[in-house]
Amino acid sequence: MTQASNPVVKVCVEEKLAAFADYWSPRIVAELNDQHIKLVKLHGDFVWHLHEHEDELFYVIKGTLVIELRDRNIVLNPGEFVVIPKGVEHRPVARDEVHVMLFEPAGTVNTGNNSGDLTVTEPQHI
Amino acid sequence: MTQASNPVVKVCVEEKLAAFADYWSPRIVAELNDQHIKLVKLHGDFVWHLHEHEDELFYVIKGTLVIELRDRNIVLNPGEFVVIPKGVEHRPVARDEVHVMLFEPAGTVNTGNNSGDLTVTEPQHI
Repeated sequence: MTQASNPVVKVCVEEKLAAFADYWSPRIVAELNDQHIKLVKLHGDFVWHLHEHEDELFYVIKGTLVIELRDRNIVLNPGEFVVIPKGVEHRPVARDEVHVMLFEPAGTVNTGNNSGDLTVTEPQHI
Repeated sequence: MTQASNPVVKVCVEEKLAAFADYWSPRIVAELNDQHIKLVKLHGDFVWHLHEHEDELFYVIKGTLVIELRDRNIVLNPGEFVVIPKGVEHRPVARDEVHVMLFEPAGTVNTGNNSGDLTVTEPQHI
């Protein structure tokens, strides 16, 4: 494989975030080592769920994100992140709009084991 | 495995960066899905190298990072990232101090195929 077949493109997170406005619908902005980098805007309460096979990283770009766990809450401000290990039930809650970068394996479904109206099975690449 | 065996700990990137001062020596701050999140401070010119098996993501937290490729340069400011695919020769250059978050497979060696004085084979966990 030549270098030309692997175009190296810079990603500006703010520009990508400006390209969509809907909540709870992750966009894929990069792929590496079978992992995806996604951006998502959150507002309100998500559903309780877990991912059976995937650890999931939430890195906050803007706003304050609460990750509810069954025994406590994690509060994340910009520049902070958390890894939710596979199998751990969690619920993201955003009182005001929150922008988040996600690192997780390709194919991870946003609602995990709790499919419903908010499930996005094939996130858009932007 | 119970949830208690998987402690969920928030990571503040600025706090982690304040915990070390040396350049070109990545620290591991999180692990998920056999990938590592590392933080590193850069200043000056690194060595040309490539990673035979690993794609590598550079996300700039502070400063301006130039990633030299053989045919052009990528300039990254805070909030911007790039994925350098496996097999692509690159050289990070930081005219002034730069703080970077790396996302790459566990075991990725900073100097890739070009081992030398700057090689760190076992990054510290902080």
